[in-house]
Amino acid sequence: MNRFYIDGLIKNALLEDVNNRDISSECLFAADHTSRARFAAKQEGVLCGIEVALRVFELLDESFRAEVFLKDGAALSKGDVIAEVSGRTLALLQGERTALNLLQHMSGIATLTDAYVRRTEGTKAKICDTRKTLPGLRPLQKYAVACGGGKNHRFNLSDAVMLKDNHIDAAGSIAKAVAAARAFVGHTVTVEVETRSLAEVRQALEAGADIIMLDNMDTDTMAEAVKLAAGRAVLEASGGITLQNVAQVAGTGVDYISVGALTHSVRALDISMKFVKG
Amino acid sequence: MNRFYIDGLIKNALLEDVNNRDISSECLFAADHTSRARFAAKQEGVLCGIEVALRVFELLDESFRAEVFLKDGAALSKGDVIAEVSGRTLALLQGERTALNLLQHMSGIATLTDAYVRRTEGTKAKICDTRKTLPGLRPLQKYAVACGGGKNHRFNLSDAVMLKDNHIDAAGSIAKAVAAARAFVGHTVTVEVETRSLAEVRQALEAGADIIMLDNMDTDTMAEAVKLAAGRAVLEASGGITLQNVAQVAGTGVDYISVGALTHSVRALDISMKFVKG
Amino acid sequence: MNRFYIDGLIKNALLEDVNNRDISSECLFAADHTSRARFAAKQEGVLCGIEVALRVFELLDESFRAEVFLKDGAALSKGDVIAEVSGRTLALLQGERTALNLLQHMSGIATLTDAYVRRTEGTKAKICDTRKTLPGLRPLQKYAVACGGGKNHRFNLSDAVMLKDNHIDAAGSIAKAVAAARAFVGHTVTVEVETRSLAEVRQALEAGADIIMLDNMDTDTMAEAVKLAAGRAVLEASGGITLQNVAQVAGTGVDYISVGALTHSVRALDISMKFVKG
Amino acid sequence: MNRFYIDGLIKNALLEDVNNRDISSECLFAADHTSRARFAAKQEGVLCGIEVALRVFELLDESFRAEVFLKDGAALSKGDVIAEVSGRTLALLQGERTALNLLQHMSGIATLTDAYVRRTEGTKAKICDTRKTLPGLRPLQKYAVACGGGKNHRFNLSDAVMLKDNHIDAAGSIAKAVAAARAFVGHTVTVEVETRSLAEVRQALEAGADIIMLDNMDTDTMAEAVKLAAGRAVLEASGGITLQNVAQVAGTGVDYISVGALTHSVRALDISMKFVKG
Amino acid sequence: MNRFYIDGLIKNALLEDVNNRDISSECLFAADHTSRARFAAKQEGVLCGIEVALRVFELLDESFRAEVFLKDGAALSKGDVIAEVSGRTLALLQGERTALNLLQHMSGIATLTDAYVRRTEGTKAKICDTRKTLPGLRPLQKYAVACGGGKNHRFNLSDAVMLKDNHIDAAGSIAKAVAAARAFVGHTVTVEVETRSLAEVRQALEAGADIIMLDNMDTDTMAEAVKLAAGRAVLEASGGITLQNVAQVAGTGVDYISVGALTHSVRALDISMKFVKG
Amino acid sequence: MNRFYIDGLIKNALLEDVNNRDISSECLFAADHTSRARFAAKQEGVLCGIEVALRVFELLDESFRAEVFLKDGAALSKGDVIAEVSGRTLALLQGERTALNLLQHMSGIATLTDAYVRRTEGTKAKICDTRKTLPGLRPLQKYAVACGGGKNHRFNLSDAVMLKDNHIDAAGSIAKAVAAARAFVGHTVTVEVETRSLAEVRQALEAGADIIMLDNMDTDTMAEAVKLAAGRAVLEASGGITLQNVAQVAGTGVDYISVGALTHSVRALDISMKFVKG
Repeated sequence: MNRFYIDGLIKNALLEDVNNRDISSECLFAADHTSRARFAAKQEGVLCGIEVALRVFELLDESFRAEVFLKDGAALSKGDVIAEVSGRTLALLQGERTALNLLQHMSGIATLTDAYVRRTEGTKAKICDTRKTLPGLRPLQKYAVACGGGKNHRFNLSDAVMLKDNHIDAAGSIAKAVAAARAFVGHTVTVEVETRSLAEVRQALEAGADIIMLDNMDTDTMAEAVKLAAGRAVLEASGGITLQNVAQVAGTGVDYISVGALTHSVRALDISMKFVKG
Repeated sequence: MNRFYIDGLIKNALLEDVNNRDISSECLFAADHTSRARFAAKQEGVLCGIEVALRVFELLDESFRAEVFLKDGAALSKGDVIAEVSGRTLALLQGERTALNLLQHMSGIATLTDAYVRRTEGTKAKICDTRKTLPGLRPLQKYAVACGGGKNHRFNLSDAVMLKDNHIDAAGSIAKAVAAARAFVGHTVTVEVETRSLAEVRQALEAGADIIMLDNMDTDTMAEAVKLAAGRAVLEASGGITLQNVAQVAGTGVDYISVGALTHSVRALDISMKFVKG
Repeated sequence: MNRFYIDGLIKNALLEDVNNRDISSECLFAADHTSRARFAAKQEGVLCGIEVALRVFELLDESFRAEVFLKDGAALSKGDVIAEVSGRTLALLQGERTALNLLQHMSGIATLTDAYVRRTEGTKAKICDTRKTLPGLRPLQKYAVACGGGKNHRFNLSDAVMLKDNHIDAAGSIAKAVAAARAFVGHTVTVEVETRSLAEVRQALEAGADIIMLDNMDTDTMAEAVKLAAGRAVLEASGGITLQNVAQVAGTGVDYISVGALTHSVRALDISMKFVKG
Repeated sequence: MNRFYIDGLIKNALLEDVNNRDISSECLFAADHTSRARFAAKQEGVLCGIEVALRVFELLDESFRAEVFLKDGAALSKGDVIAEVSGRTLALLQGERTALNLLQHMSGIATLTDAYVRRTEGTKAKICDTRKTLPGLRPLQKYAVACGGGKNHRFNLSDAVMLKDNHIDAAGSIAKAVAAARAFVGHTVTVEVETRSLAEVRQALEAGADIIMLDNMDTDTMAEAVKLAAGRAVLEASGGITLQNVAQVAGTGVDYISVGALTHSVRALDISMKFVKG
Repeated sequence: MNRFYIDGLIKNALLEDVNNRDISSECLFAADHTSRARFAAKQEGVLCGIEVALRVFELLDESFRAEVFLKDGAALSKGDVIAEVSGRTLALLQGERTALNLLQHMSGIATLTDAYVRRTEGTKAKICDTRKTLPGLRPLQKYAVACGGGKNHRFNLSDAVMLKDNHIDAAGSIAKAVAAARAFVGHTVTVEVETRSLAEVRQALEAGADIIMLDNMDTDTMAEAVKLAAGRAVLEASGGITLQNVAQVAGTGVDYISVGALTHSVRALDISMKFVKG
Repeated sequence: MNRFYIDGLIKNALLEDVNNRDISSECLFAADHTSRARFAAKQEGVLCGIEVALRVFELLDESFRAEVFLKDGAALSKGDVIAEVSGRTLALLQGERTALNLLQHMSGIATLTDAYVRRTEGTKAKICDTRKTLPGLRPLQKYAVACGGGKNHRFNLSDAVMLKDNHIDAAGSIAKAVAAARAFVGHTVTVEVETRSLAEVRQALEAGADIIMLDNMDTDTMAEAVKLAAGRAVLEASGGITLQNVAQVAGTGVDYISVGALTHSVRALDISMKFVKG
């Protein structure tokens, strides 16, 4: 990830969380008091964000040191020690909440993505994310999807074309919409068309779309679309995908399955930062 | 909420989501093409964030107009129309994802909070949030907790004292830690002490803590603490609270129950923005 | 104080003061020319801001080194050497004005606060600040008040309730205003009521206000209010407090005396930064 | 002043002062509740900053309206009504403190400057400011000096040359320092030399300095310097200037008198914002 | 373009150009003095940036009004009037230089792009830009290339893969590098390979690259590459392209020709803003 | 230059160029993979910006090291090695484009300035820049002009007065405009008047302008103006200056020649950054 994005996010988070000063700690710890602490998993999952979490303390304390035992993407079992750190106590206490908020959220995403990926093993389908992310956190969230074994869909409205019903209505047809888009963009940009029926899939194929989204179709229709496409376009299933039905969707032969929940409905993974006494 | 915070957040979100330009839409819609759209609930819940969502479009388009039917805090049934809007099509398409990401996240928090609040009805216990929020989103998230009927715990490390085991160890005792904090802060600041046993509750009461957190105690112990305190301090249950056990915890007579999940493990509430044809 | 706040403030100050480049110095000193300089008090007072002042140079010059003899809060006599520093001459010259502007202003506040505090010695009254601070400098200014022995009143409109006549008029009575505030905020927030007569003090006590401000009352009325309150609320004298009358006000038995002048009418303390020759 | 500077300063100030929300007012006033208020002088002085103060409310509330009776630079008598305003009550209460903090500080500077200017009437001496300003507030403070009838010295290290003893030592002589500076800068830049003796004044004149600062000289020496210069350079008295001695300094015939206290030791001018009932 | 990007750029530019205030104009024009002015072409070219230029004044002056006669992309002849505007004189003078700097630079890019495009008419080759842009101006510059009839290459390092010799060396072969990239990115991302010989072109084709850059090849080799590719990949000529040789390069049958000079070596187009008297 | 300006510019440029991550390189290089690279001139010119370019990598990589052989202002021959650097490969690849974009642009300006300066050798005329710079890049561009042997005209509207026809019309005459400006500004500010005829030059001289701009005059008129002025004001030729006519203009005896093209019409100087194998 972009270091300047990460550093900016962390500074902003610490201004938000600390505001002027940590009144609970500054009255009790001298500026040069140091402590040690340990990050450990309190439940099973996939680790993500440990470097980001440690960066919080690096920005607060030049004397901060960390020994990292597990890296982003690692499988976590309950009790696994992820890292041991040391530094100024005031910095450890000031950064603790921000570091954990980031680490638990990112690991939550990686863990959820991993669950989807596992259920599609043995198929060609890849799990990918969407633009349903939280404001200001997209790069972090998409990185976490990748750590969980997922793929990233487009980052923003500038880097790939997605033609939805509004666009197609405005153009008059799928063919015209694709043509308009191709005329507008350069050669590095791919064009995706959202479809809701086999008729639309056929039109998208004829229009030469690079990617065809199968939006909220039942799995029989998806399987039909896979046959129709016969490799001429990448097929992406989307809409209403859950851990319960993702294997069935993957079984239709689609190439990608996009899941908004990966980033919009995340459960934090329980990871602790405990001060080590003595 | 602070208008400058909201506007800054939205600008940042749109820079992230749009980046340079919306290549899918700019090739198909003229700058002065206008559309109408409708926000509607696709599932039951509590509405939160409609003003923030509409602000996205106000910032993008001076000609944007909205008719708002439901306000933050309203109960939503599936199908309820929340607002109807009109404006430049390019602005509606550019802002759509950011507006929905905000609205669905905030409504998700309000809905979850409301679920906790309902389960504690008939008791004196109030549900409150924590500092387990997402970086940069705390004011939004805490506002959403309030819309769901919850209360806000402290906003940041500057506005209330919370003495945890580290602080107490450093001070030597709960009494000494409370005294140090009182000597440090002014008269507008309350002092909370985290306790793990009845012995600690007793010490916190003697030390004159304003608020005593009962951390991960079983409900029998909590009930005992309530008796011990006898109104001399506000009691806050914390740790391991779920929708399953919250009623039981509330039944112990505690004053507040703080729930990290309200903001760290949110399911987006399904709300749509549909373009109205014709 | 929050490191990111301080660093942001300093960067902004140096962009303002240096703008593009220091045209007086860049034509005369090579980039690797180094110098030594000494910070010393030119008048009596209380030191505040030496770490902030030295941070200016740290941000400008990685090779900057400082030996600090006196810390924030120290009593200064004329001639006292506060610190000796060395580094690149261009950095010392670029940072000099910004460092001194901060140091002299902060020490000015600490010195003035100290003067108020001394005049109340032997009473229970504590001197505190207000929100009458300069835009962008509040954390610095409130820190300086604390260095001078004062206490900090609330930092902002989010962290404590203060009900003034507008609020009370809108609510209908002090009791209703306090009730509305209590219903709105969480358990970490204290409620203060501004009063102008003993009748209002009585109402505020009955309403259960945590803090009662005695606004521009004469000292007899204040003494009466102290009796009335009898410890049931914290009493804060405010309005028209000067070095001349503060002892008398403190003698009434109030708990806090808030003084806007601590931050809105500051005399810079004279501190010099002299280059050491040879 | 630069609108973007002012707006940025105000937004920053409101983020600082309001933080998340105004918890005292939001529980009592509906969003569409409106009020009227009046700005009035509570002591004699020179008005400065009324447009900046009103801009605070414009940025908070599109419906805000103001009738302005007195403009920046106007002489204020106690009781003078400066402006009457109306708008949303929540905006008026949120902006009140920031608006007054700015208005009172700026008027304080203008009033102090005016006092210096009056004491030099009948002489050719002009009062000017220095770079001894508060971080982030320089444009505001220098504008206020001008409103009080003073002149602005350089804004920053890029827009004029000031050669002090360090520079002169490094160059070897005043002549060499001036020559180095002239060779470095363009034709729009003036060169000022700081001098401490008549010998140095002589050297500076010979070196062709545009401006010669007479640093901490006694008035006899200054008068001598005026004779020496005989109009060949602008002479600026500096150091230890007070309201007590400024007339005497002006009497020496110097062209400018620079006074750090104008911006580093300001007393807020007492101006009120009162809500108008009914 | 993204409105928030444009507004941010303009605010930054005006802070840079105006700094504190326009001392030449504020002494001569009252705040409510208004003027009219006219933008006109002083040489032939392609217009680009008129909306951005007018936005400068909109941000400075709510009363600013403009009548626009020619839009971005229009062919300009010497003397063509582009727009007539009116507003506060101080705003027109403050914004003049920034508006012209933007307009002349953007029109310079569009004009240069147009010159390249014209020389390739009748071929299938499209002219495109590169990442050789000026810091902070990329969106503006790429928009101007599009106005001149060119295409945009990737915006940044996140939105398309470009494998250069470093990457290929690290991977071991073109095939391995392409495979590694495909495994890393999602389905919306295209993969381009830089080649320097026909052998490399062959490897890139076999590796399934979407786009093959022909780097600094002579036109015979390019023509050979076109035959080899036979439509299996998009071919992009790059390196050493000038107005003199671009037609010849286009004649080889390549699909795209990327030209760094479009954005790194721009001549401002001469456009004036004249105040209209009377 | 101001370090905070440079660092801010670079961070902004890297956010623009890298966006979320470098997808081409992150799939192929481990985080700890290191490389060496060499900056070399590919054409003749004047070097400018090497420190800025290297700062890009310092901000990305604490382990980055550079050996610098040539400094800003050095004459470059084709093939000259400017610097050799080493560091993390991912940082070198992420920073490469931004570093080169800055270095080539700044060297382009220095080279062009140098060409103008050489053509005026043997005359007293100095070449200077204008405010015709690119938004956000002015300090960089003006620094580059100085590296090329040119002088800097005013940086912004606050640091020198320039009276154009609008100002003079508003004032009523050149004399009145100069008087108004003098009355408004302090003693460090110079006053320049734009003139279009000898009559105006005469008026400007009588008005006591410090600098007189000769706007678009033919060289005979300029020579006449030089005689008229006879050293009483600095004369600046402006308008329509090219490499072809600059020597002739310099021959008229003017003091300064301002050239907008130095910053508004720059050709990037070709400098490469090559990775060193082995």
